[in-house]
Amino acid sequence: MKCPRSRVEEEVLNKIRPKPWELEKANRVWSFVRERLEDTLAAKGINAEVTLQGSVAKGTWLSGDLDIDVFVLFDREWRAKLNEAKEIFREAFRDLPVEERYAAHPYIRVLVEDVWVDVVPALRVRSGLEAETAVDRTPFHTKYILERLDDEKRDEVRLLKKFLKGIGVYGAEVAVQGFSGYLAELLIVAFGCFRNVLEKAARWKPPVVIDIEGHYGGVVDAVLEKFRDSPLIVIDPVDPRRNVAAAVSVKSLAWFVLAAREYLRQPSIKFFEPPSYPSEPHEILSVAGPRAWKILVVRYDVNVRSPDVGWGVARAAARRLVSLLEERGYYVIDRDAFYCEQGRYVLVAVEVLEHPLPQPLPHRGPEVWLEERASRFVQKSLERGDIGPWVDEKGVLWSLRWIRVVVEDIAVRAKPRETKMVTIATLGDAILGGWNLCPEAWRWLYRFTVKRPAWLA
Amino acid sequence: MKCPRSRVEEEVLNKIRPKPWELEKANRVWSFVRERLEDTLAAKGINAEVTLQGSVAKGTWLSGDLDIDVFVLFDREWRAKLNEAKEIFREAFRDLPVEERYAAHPYIRVLVEDVWVDVVPALRVRSGLEAETAVDRTPFHTKYILERLDDEKRDEVRLLKKFLKGIGVYGAEVAVQGFSGYLAELLIVAFGCFRNVLEKAARWKPPVVIDIEGHYGGVVDAVLEKFRDSPLIVIDPVDPRRNVAAAVSVKSLAWFVLAAREYLRQPSIKFFEPPSYPSEPHEILSVAGPRAWKILVVRYDVNVRSPDVGWGVARAAARRLVSLLEERGYYVIDRDAFYCEQGRYVLVAVEVLEHPLPQPLPHRGPEVWLEERASRFVQKSLERGDIGPWVDEKGVLWSLRWIRVVVEDIAVRAKPRETKMVTIATLGDAILGGWNLCPEAWRWLYRFTVKRPAWLA
Repeated sequence: MKCPRSRVEEEVLNKIRPKPWELEKANRVWSFVRERLEDTLAAKGINAEVTLQGSVAKGTWLSGDLDIDVFVLFDREWRAKLNEAKEIFREAFRDLPVEERYAAHPYIRVLVEDVWVDVVPALRVRSGLEAETAVDRTPFHTKYILERLDDEKRDEVRLLKKFLKGIGVYGAEVAVQGFSGYLAELLIVAFGCFRNVLEKAARWKPPVVIDIEGHYGGVVDAVLEKFRDSPLIVIDPVDPRRNVAAAVSVKSLAWFVLAAREYLRQPSIKFFEPPSYPSEPHEILSVAGPRAWKILVVRYDVNVRSPDVGWGVARAAARRLVSLLEERGYYVIDRDAFYCEQGRYVLVAVEVLEHPLPQPLPHRGPEVWLEERASRFVQKSLERGDIGPWVDEKGVLWSLRWIRVVVEDIAVRAKPRETKMVTIATLGDAILGGWNLCPEAWRWLYRFTVKRPAWLA
Repeated sequence: MKCPRSRVEEEVLNKIRPKPWELEKANRVWSFVRERLEDTLAAKGINAEVTLQGSVAKGTWLSGDLDIDVFVLFDREWRAKLNEAKEIFREAFRDLPVEERYAAHPYIRVLVEDVWVDVVPALRVRSGLEAETAVDRTPFHTKYILERLDDEKRDEVRLLKKFLKGIGVYGAEVAVQGFSGYLAELLIVAFGCFRNVLEKAARWKPPVVIDIEGHYGGVVDAVLEKFRDSPLIVIDPVDPRRNVAAAVSVKSLAWFVLAAREYLRQPSIKFFEPPSYPSEPHEILSVAGPRAWKILVVRYDVNVRSPDVGWGVARAAARRLVSLLEERGYYVIDRDAFYCEQGRYVLVAVEVLEHPLPQPLPHRGPEVWLEERASRFVQKSLERGDIGPWVDEKGVLWSLRWIRVVVEDIAVRAKPRETKMVTIATLGDAILGGWNLCPEAWRWLYRFTVKRPAWLA
């Protein structure tokens, strides 16, 4: 079956299809890594298989996005000692830059030429059902996809991935709560091409169930019962106990559905290009105007182990802050959370209808001529830090007095356990007060302020 | 009688007393101008007297403020043709830079060395009572003051003038609506020294009546009846029909009274130094915060003959705008007016309690899954120029919709007859939208925003 494509899609494909030199480089690097690993394993008399996995293995990676996943599959008897595998890998790449990471077990990343290669230890099992960890299951994913995609469908996967990236819902990590690469591949397997996926999605109403291999024999109730809280349920063909779309939040799903409809109505390159928001605080002010003082920004300096944990803490803090605000009668218009890895802080942004922080209200004093009362008014105004005092056309004294509110206490009560310090301001005061945030945080605040996605302009 | 002075006052005096070289220069310039005028008049056979007037004649000018006022007093028969005098003056200074101005009659300013000299034609009369115009009266003012001030009192006048300048109420022009130099001199004649004036002023409650020469024989009712709308009435010693303080507004008087009290409580150099407010718009925003969007700025481009007329138009526009706003239920916190001479525009600033321009309120749409309704909501939001639309955690669509108000119409209805164009914005939008105003206008807006005078910090 030929997939019909618009001019926009052909244009996008020409950009994201890996170039011949990228393919060559991928092969060169993979061969090098395989040889090094095989030699090292052979020298130690270890019987393990060095395999290529991930989007390179499946031929679904995007130009410019070259990351190589190498899985070393060990025999069953390694089950208890896979944690030691990273030392063997380190030995193989002693002369190259290496970083250590953690998935199911510790693994390493090694820099070959200018390509980062993940070298992950896993257990060789007979089927996805026997997998003990997600990494054991990976080779079955690779095999499943490889058997079902031809070159044309690989391009369709690329289009879908790029679209998901463009609208900001690509990635299963907590930061995104969106669609993984494997999920994008399965959607193409299920519906044949990019356009078909969008056309299906345009009509989705959660919970959506997709069971490609019919593992549940069409018994939707059983599926819904098992994956109760998921708006999108895509049964893993290689392991029916697993929902490949478990990470997808209702919000990400809704954005995808909306974008699918808008794209079908009017295809445009905009949907494939993540917007580059400005990171200059004053640009945010230009967009926000007075709303900047109705957007509360709370910063929690936290101590966490990983970005995923940081993002989890951020979202929990946002939920808690919003529910405390609503308890106190605040009308919450919008909320979002952010975790800045470099700075190790969580930000929560909440836009409310009312002014969330103290605001100045006019206070009438005596006429200037009433000497004693006037002096008392002036002194009190100065002590209180009012705006003014000033004198009107009739010689009457005035000041603007700050009316206190309780939001500061609420922000402190909402703080996560991991918090070292709480800082709170309106967006306007944070900008004018020179808050020092990472560029990504300002971009996130810009996006929070404009609200309308770039593809909907 | 010796005038007691604080350390602060001595310090100020050392700065503002003209330096010997300034006195020499004043004499040199005055001699030069007198000779030129006398020669020209003699050559034409005109019998007129060249006289020195103003603060240089009275010895009450401040260092750095050298302006020379030369009055040429013509005989009665010139009454109808004083308008022609300027041509004679022009002839006398053919080789020097000359500007033409207008007071009672046209007069000229001539630049000698680096000093501007006003050369004003006036009628020689026998007393202030016979004066037909303000300029005919001037020589009697000079004479009156000269006879009553010794060197010490001249210094007291200087202190008072500098104090009035420092707190921003020096000058009888419409822009200031404050105290003229002659009024300052009379206050020292009346009360003896700077401190005494302040001590009296600290207890003033308008209407205040000062009749140095007792022209009204202590009959206050007659004075109040005659000068009904003046908060401060200082009978001119040389012409009892005239209130020297006619220009002083209640507001200027109130500021003076307040400053006098505060100064007596704690003398400080701050009272003598006009604050230099920043003219950088973003500095205003830092001070104003969200208030910047509750301060309405209306610009009327007007065509007027003189700064005094411009300032008059500005104040009238402010009054009219405020009364229209109040009619419509707006609570006006503060208002002020400004005239920019270079740009020929009037600015009115009004701070109100409510947001004066359209503001965005949240509007809940359908869930994304309700395909038709969702599409309609999205399209309408885009057409309307809402903020958003966006999607919440539950997949519900939202937008912020602009709620219209009527302030624009009010601003147009309040426009002065002389207006060519009306522009309206909140201060915040004017700043972020890059309004192009003269530096003095931004300084005025800064002052309007901080409200508290610099000497009250």
